[in-house]
Amino acid sequence: MKQVVTFGEIMMRLAPPLNQRFAQAGSLEITYGGGDANVGASLAGLGVPAAHVTCFPANDLGRAAAAHFRSLGVNLDAAVFSGDRLGLYFLEVGAGMRSSKVVYDRAHSAFAHLDPAAFDWDEILQNAGWLHWTGITPAISAAAAEATRQAIAAARRRGLTVSADVNYRRNLWQYGQTAQAVMTELAAGCDVLVCSEGDADDLFGIRPLPGADSKFVSVAQQVMARFPQVRLVVSTRRKTHSASHNGLKGLCYDGQQLFQTPTYDLNPIVDRIGGGDAFVAGFIYGSLHYESSAQALAFGVAAAALKHTVHGDINRVTAGEVEEIMRGNTSGRLLR
Amino acid sequence: MKQVVTFGEIMMRLAPPLNQRFAQAGSLEITYGGGDANVGASLAGLGVPAAHVTCFPANDLGRAAAAHFRSLGVNLDAAVFSGDRLGLYFLEVGAGMRSSKVVYDRAHSAFAHLDPAAFDWDEILQNAGWLHWTGITPAISAAAAEATRQAIAAARRRGLTVSADVNYRRNLWQYGQTAQAVMTELAAGCDVLVCSEGDADDLFGIRPLPGADSKFVSVAQQVMARFPQVRLVVSTRRKTHSASHNGLKGLCYDGQQLFQTPTYDLNPIVDRIGGGDAFVAGFIYGSLHYESSAQALAFGVAAAALKHTVHGDINRVTAGEVEEIMRGNTSGRLLR
Amino acid sequence: MKQVVTFGEIMMRLAPPLNQRFAQAGSLEITYGGGDANVGASLAGLGVPAAHVTCFPANDLGRAAAAHFRSLGVNLDAAVFSGDRLGLYFLEVGAGMRSSKVVYDRAHSAFAHLDPAAFDWDEILQNAGWLHWTGITPAISAAAAEATRQAIAAARRRGLTVSADVNYRRNLWQYGQTAQAVMTELAAGCDVLVCSEGDADDLFGIRPLPGADSKFVSVAQQVMARFPQVRLVVSTRRKTHSASHNGLKGLCYDGQQLFQTPTYDLNPIVDRIGGGDAFVAGFIYGSLHYESSAQALAFGVAAAALKHTVHGDINRVTAGEVEEIMRGNTSGRLLR
Amino acid sequence: MKQVVTFGEIMMRLAPPLNQRFAQAGSLEITYGGGDANVGASLAGLGVPAAHVTCFPANDLGRAAAAHFRSLGVNLDAAVFSGDRLGLYFLEVGAGMRSSKVVYDRAHSAFAHLDPAAFDWDEILQNAGWLHWTGITPAISAAAAEATRQAIAAARRRGLTVSADVNYRRNLWQYGQTAQAVMTELAAGCDVLVCSEGDADDLFGIRPLPGADSKFVSVAQQVMARFPQVRLVVSTRRKTHSASHNGLKGLCYDGQQLFQTPTYDLNPIVDRIGGGDAFVAGFIYGSLHYESSAQALAFGVAAAALKHTVHGDINRVTAGEVEEIMRGNTSGRLLR
Amino acid sequence: MKQVVTFGEIMMRLAPPLNQRFAQAGSLEITYGGGDANVGASLAGLGVPAAHVTCFPANDLGRAAAAHFRSLGVNLDAAVFSGDRLGLYFLEVGAGMRSSKVVYDRAHSAFAHLDPAAFDWDEILQNAGWLHWTGITPAISAAAAEATRQAIAAARRRGLTVSADVNYRRNLWQYGQTAQAVMTELAAGCDVLVCSEGDADDLFGIRPLPGADSKFVSVAQQVMARFPQVRLVVSTRRKTHSASHNGLKGLCYDGQQLFQTPTYDLNPIVDRIGGGDAFVAGFIYGSLHYESSAQALAFGVAAAALKHTVHGDINRVTAGEVEEIMRGNTSGRLLR
Amino acid sequence: MKQVVTFGEIMMRLAPPLNQRFAQAGSLEITYGGGDANVGASLAGLGVPAAHVTCFPANDLGRAAAAHFRSLGVNLDAAVFSGDRLGLYFLEVGAGMRSSKVVYDRAHSAFAHLDPAAFDWDEILQNAGWLHWTGITPAISAAAAEATRQAIAAARRRGLTVSADVNYRRNLWQYGQTAQAVMTELAAGCDVLVCSEGDADDLFGIRPLPGADSKFVSVAQQVMARFPQVRLVVSTRRKTHSASHNGLKGLCYDGQQLFQTPTYDLNPIVDRIGGGDAFVAGFIYGSLHYESSAQALAFGVAAAALKHTVHGDINRVTAGEVEEIMRGNTSGRLLR
Repeated sequence: MKQVVTFGEIMMRLAPPLNQRFAQAGSLEITYGGGDANVGASLAGLGVPAAHVTCFPANDLGRAAAAHFRSLGVNLDAAVFSGDRLGLYFLEVGAGMRSSKVVYDRAHSAFAHLDPAAFDWDEILQNAGWLHWTGITPAISAAAAEATRQAIAAARRRGLTVSADVNYRRNLWQYGQTAQAVMTELAAGCDVLVCSEGDADDLFGIRPLPGADSKFVSVAQQVMARFPQVRLVVSTRRKTHSASHNGLKGLCYDGQQLFQTPTYDLNPIVDRIGGGDAFVAGFIYGSLHYESSAQALAFGVAAAALKHTVHGDINRVTAGEVEEIMRGNTSGRLLR
Repeated sequence: MKQVVTFGEIMMRLAPPLNQRFAQAGSLEITYGGGDANVGASLAGLGVPAAHVTCFPANDLGRAAAAHFRSLGVNLDAAVFSGDRLGLYFLEVGAGMRSSKVVYDRAHSAFAHLDPAAFDWDEILQNAGWLHWTGITPAISAAAAEATRQAIAAARRRGLTVSADVNYRRNLWQYGQTAQAVMTELAAGCDVLVCSEGDADDLFGIRPLPGADSKFVSVAQQVMARFPQVRLVVSTRRKTHSASHNGLKGLCYDGQQLFQTPTYDLNPIVDRIGGGDAFVAGFIYGSLHYESSAQALAFGVAAAALKHTVHGDINRVTAGEVEEIMRGNTSGRLLR
Repeated sequence: MKQVVTFGEIMMRLAPPLNQRFAQAGSLEITYGGGDANVGASLAGLGVPAAHVTCFPANDLGRAAAAHFRSLGVNLDAAVFSGDRLGLYFLEVGAGMRSSKVVYDRAHSAFAHLDPAAFDWDEILQNAGWLHWTGITPAISAAAAEATRQAIAAARRRGLTVSADVNYRRNLWQYGQTAQAVMTELAAGCDVLVCSEGDADDLFGIRPLPGADSKFVSVAQQVMARFPQVRLVVSTRRKTHSASHNGLKGLCYDGQQLFQTPTYDLNPIVDRIGGGDAFVAGFIYGSLHYESSAQALAFGVAAAALKHTVHGDINRVTAGEVEEIMRGNTSGRLLR
Repeated sequence: MKQVVTFGEIMMRLAPPLNQRFAQAGSLEITYGGGDANVGASLAGLGVPAAHVTCFPANDLGRAAAAHFRSLGVNLDAAVFSGDRLGLYFLEVGAGMRSSKVVYDRAHSAFAHLDPAAFDWDEILQNAGWLHWTGITPAISAAAAEATRQAIAAARRRGLTVSADVNYRRNLWQYGQTAQAVMTELAAGCDVLVCSEGDADDLFGIRPLPGADSKFVSVAQQVMARFPQVRLVVSTRRKTHSASHNGLKGLCYDGQQLFQTPTYDLNPIVDRIGGGDAFVAGFIYGSLHYESSAQALAFGVAAAALKHTVHGDINRVTAGEVEEIMRGNTSGRLLR
Repeated sequence: MKQVVTFGEIMMRLAPPLNQRFAQAGSLEITYGGGDANVGASLAGLGVPAAHVTCFPANDLGRAAAAHFRSLGVNLDAAVFSGDRLGLYFLEVGAGMRSSKVVYDRAHSAFAHLDPAAFDWDEILQNAGWLHWTGITPAISAAAAEATRQAIAAARRRGLTVSADVNYRRNLWQYGQTAQAVMTELAAGCDVLVCSEGDADDLFGIRPLPGADSKFVSVAQQVMARFPQVRLVVSTRRKTHSASHNGLKGLCYDGQQLFQTPTYDLNPIVDRIGGGDAFVAGFIYGSLHYESSAQALAFGVAAAALKHTVHGDINRVTAGEVEEIMRGNTSGRLLR
Repeated sequence: MKQVVTFGEIMMRLAPPLNQRFAQAGSLEITYGGGDANVGASLAGLGVPAAHVTCFPANDLGRAAAAHFRSLGVNLDAAVFSGDRLGLYFLEVGAGMRSSKVVYDRAHSAFAHLDPAAFDWDEILQNAGWLHWTGITPAISAAAAEATRQAIAAARRRGLTVSADVNYRRNLWQYGQTAQAVMTELAAGCDVLVCSEGDADDLFGIRPLPGADSKFVSVAQQVMARFPQVRLVVSTRRKTHSASHNGLKGLCYDGQQLFQTPTYDLNPIVDRIGGGDAFVAGFIYGSLHYESSAQALAFGVAAAALKHTVHGDINRVTAGEVEEIMRGNTSGRLLR
């Protein structure tokens, strides 16, 4: 199978144990993640060859982050080590009616200061069949946006499938270009867009037409009209009962049909971070292994549901475990 | 804003981690608390200047307990260090149908042996606007009751608002005076009583009149008739589905009207201890910041609900977080 | 009260903390258990004199396992220390829709290589009133089956009550004799069989007669016809909503009447392992303390329900705590 | 082999992990110990049948303490469960030039309030060959002293060897009788006294005669003159280089000869608490297994030396491990 | 006693437990420190009123850092909360021949971006008798240097004693002004300089005169000639045998006499970070409590020695404990 | 640089934390190691391309072990997943005069049952320049010995350097062939032998000639005479002062000259396991990077010395760190 290549920043995540508030913590648990890298690592766990492209700082923390992704089976041959600061985020895990809370500390990271010329995309993509990126990456710096641009161009040149999770984060995008301008350019190079209705509005000014039967379909049709390369628009919908209990379903429009999954009941939630990335990884896996988009979507949502029972940003599950969920075996029966 | 002053014993709380039973524990997690001090510390977290008056033992454990409350922003300038034993309590945290269990080891503590003359209440209360105490304090020893008596007298002299959580604990009250006699005297000096129907019966022999529309109102009216200084009677009602799942609502009678909140669904419960104290702190905060008792009550119950998601005896939340709950935002949505 | 004697292998259980997956674990929490030994240890906790007979390896791990059961008050005077490997099992604790998972590593253990002649059953059983074993024990090796055979024979000679939890585990039974043959022989010596409908089919080829009012009764009647010594057939039925939420009820047929308990709602589940053994221990306790099988069954299921709130294989609860559950006090109200 | 019986209080020990100071601790590690019980438990580990007599509080903490000693193989059949408070001590572990520090919280314990009539010493001692007690026990309360008196009397009646570690603790002895009076009476019933020169001075007013060749011999001779029953006086001498590095040797006078061991270099010290009790246990073991007092002394000091490498109050080592030290194999070579 | 006021950045320190290397860590232990703040907090622990002036970020991490220093009794009334990033440093603790290693991540912190106008130094210093700062503070940013300048000016105006630990850190000083220029200006306003021979060379180009009897005296004399306000030059000298074993002594020149302490043997070292700050705090304590600089120096070095046995950046010891070391009681004898 | 390829079993190592004895442990810390794999992983950390060949069980534990070595940068492309049991070893870490203790539980592992045909050595070695194996591997089973034989043969065919650490373990070698026969055959194919004088005696019956100047040289000469392919014989000599304090030096004979290093003082020892493997990895690194065997030896011993400060079986250090030790910088000075 050809590689799936992902590109983006990897951060160290630091979280107080056991629902402690930040000021109660005597220690912080370490893991590592990043929207794009989580997709790659989750794919590697599912058995898909995955390579991640990034810039780690050339210090002990950067090397520790790399070791983590290597342990997950992600190929880091194209990762660069330069600069001196690893992006961080601090996570306070909520419960019940108390929200989980993320404090980002990622400004001025090695990745933000990457040199786009450090990546020879034609070389990097030579064994690849799919390129995936998220809207977080071009939001970080002009250099990161430029590298994304070059990656997409090379992927198009080489005939890869390109997907993006457009994922609009208002607090990023500080470097002088607007999300709207940059993302419009980059989205044009994609075959698959993960894009919620809110993102479509924020990034592309696209809203459901009044009176549309399905708001999602209406938005997806306009997105596909705007970006003719796009052939699938997918998204999840989350119902947040509490920090410990959510519902999750998936939607996919292929230009003709709307596919939807049933809603999974996620209770209790072990770790909600990376649920969206697990969905994307699952959808890519499904696209590579199943015939229909409906099945790819079903696999993606089942994978995302299972992610909520796993600690860390990454969906450490096997394809077999996801298939059990797809088949409706959600009872969590003891396996001996 | 004027200080809220609280008075009472601070204990070390020792609890096995993670729902272990006592005999399984290889270590015990430390925190510190006490009914009155929890109110002060929770108020400090909400941004209200709070001072706590107590007697710590003059040893390393007493100093550690003081450091904990200092870290929470509680002013301890009037705390005394004398005697040699810190009160302790051991907490076994239940789950589902297994109850949490407290083993007290607080007899003979430094606080029980305090010298009432060590506290110059006119000095202590000079920047204060509110005095709060609980029924646990006068239950500990004659000396503690005497100090409570003097505190209330000074507060009345200086025109402070005085509140008490009457909180009847049958197992205390070992020093030869009855709860009924002592509490009747002390309650007479209060403006606000936190008093459930059960406490009213146990302490004051007050029961709802037969046929009363609202038992709580009937009790509150009799309490107010008995204690003319009291202008508000407040309480919570807890529905215990399991050790992990409770419901909670609040009630307040102001002599004319009954205010009630909706019932919050608390699930899962991270730590139930100090829920009542969080309510009182929230009610005091609300009384100082809102115009109506209904709003103060709403803030109090929202604060108490949120407390159940926080480890330890103390409600480590901000006023903004409580206001979100008051506004109905109980979905625990991830905050980035 | 006369001793209850149990016989079987004790394993070290190694589990990643806090719902971690195996590959995430930096440490493993140790406890010890085994289907038969769990029954004995749970009985000791309930106040019943209990002795366990087993073969530990003559090394530090064997001694550590023994110390664990000694701490629980189990008499190990008849345990043998020989051989060199302690059976192990690795437990990954699931949550929600992710199953818990057991990886056994018990082959070639000291127990599997035990010498039946090492146990003088007439001596061992001299203060005993009840012998309990499980279908796991004769599944381990021919030697273990032979020792079980001798134990049952001695028990019958001495007039003890003999119970068995037939517990069919397909993956064991590797030593050349069939479960069907061995268990048929051994079950014949029992007074009480814990046997689900599935076990009856797998082991004895017994299925409910078509059109039977109660499948359980139909199976139990055939079991009792096959094994005339058996006077009670009991079982639990578990409804698995998720790894964190189950329902549990109990059934008992005494040749004339079917007794059933209501279904307990187990949510959240702290530790599901040993739930069945807790049921058996509770049923034996109940049989020794109550007059009717209905009450013994009620105690057994209440004990099993409570077990799901306790870490480890063993039900570390008191008889008083179980009786509260039997009386319907499942609200987990805080005990001070 | 006949039982060694010990008598005295068992406390819960609570210590911050890893050299933390008390005010830094977020948790406390639990173990259990007591001067006399440590001797019994260390003997059980060495393979000597040991029974401990004590009064535990009738609560969860008392039961947890009992479970700990049961896990070590100590017979607790004669232990009583009554009263409501387990004695505690808090240990801060020093390092280098910072001392370890003990904060006792043992006043008002269940043991202090024991009923001497609860112990039928003739029954308790029926399988015993040796009774050991420490000077801590009669220091706790008049009741504890009375029980010690009765134990010694019964032991003498039955022809047991009686040993005492006189261990003078100035801070105890609060109940109105002097250490000097009580200990003089009780020491008179002993065969073996563990008594340093300091203790001899403090308790018996015995000091080395001016110009004595050996101060220890001079003291021991006077002790033996005062207490004709005593046939051996033994002691250790500790050289405290730092909290992490000590030297230790042993001395024994049998009325005729002085035996001394070489000095062991203890570096680093894992846990110094219980070193003296390990010496006594080793000396008793040696007295039961070797022909000469010199060998018993050598075993005792080797055991004490090894204890400094073991966490907790109790010397969890085998006789074989001690014998290696006796033989001079102190190199700590890896054992595969 | 008048307050000692310190000024400088507070960082979160994150360290793998137990000598783990960074890439091995699954969690990081949190504490907080900063060269100047450590002096203040250590003084508070010694009983000296201490206030620290700083700029925390206005987020949860800033508040957690503040809570830590409040728990230590440091007055933070003049601390400002603004900006969005808390400086961090990662500490890998070495052992034996493996060095401890610090990875700083403090660039772009809230403190670096402080507004000098936020500090009204005349107000801040009104109860103060001593101002202390370190060479790290003006190295961080022009704004930090300007605030330091203003603090010194106000202190001089008000007649305070001003001390500085000149502490040259080559990797800081990135903002365009040279350490040499800035420090020369700021040192001129000091009464006491903590300045090693290396620092004197790096910052002031001062080297011992050839043939000087004492290099330290030669340097100190030139420093005092250059900065007439300076009346004492002090320093420590560290001999690094290994990461676990150091020697430490102190030197002080008062313009006439050289005072030196003996060398303390530090073995094993629990935590070496903050040793220099503990020295300064001890020297200030000594200056306030003793008559001679020799005694102040002796107290300072004893305090620094003891710091090496305490976890964290701050010297959590009492004055009594330091005095024991000063008196030569370095044996770490157990205190009961 | 060409790959170094290693071949051998990987085990899970389970160790109680912090010098606990086995029976005290409530949890076990996990790491993974194996004599040959440790060499490969240490080389990867030094920057040498390393591939390890092994057979993992096809279960979660095997995958976790593989993830560990992947995180260290070891290429596992030629590893096979089959069988069902991961070899284990339990490690109790001693201190001072108490030995560390290993309890092996590796019999019947997946590796022991490997199929030699699963490894295509010509393919595996195609990018390799060096093959390393240890005497543990052929000791495990006939299949493992056969695979080793084939690996050596292929390496010889392809002109690789072949090294072996002959490492005689008496307790292995249970499968019916003698260590002497098998090792003699296999050693004949090696260029470099790591072989102590004890191993030479045990395996090859080679002892120093009487009156030899250097026993090591005498043995090495006989080894080289027996095995003409061998051109270097190397070894370490360890002086065991205590479990916490060792000395270590290295020796190398090249047929003409004896090279020796000075003795490093290892104090305190963080983790002694894998010290020999770190030496071999260092020696191989040195052989690939330096001109002389003396330098390779010096690098090897410096690496081994540093290993004793690192937790786990593997030497997680950089080449730069080792070079510092080689240059004599063993003072462990803090690196900022």
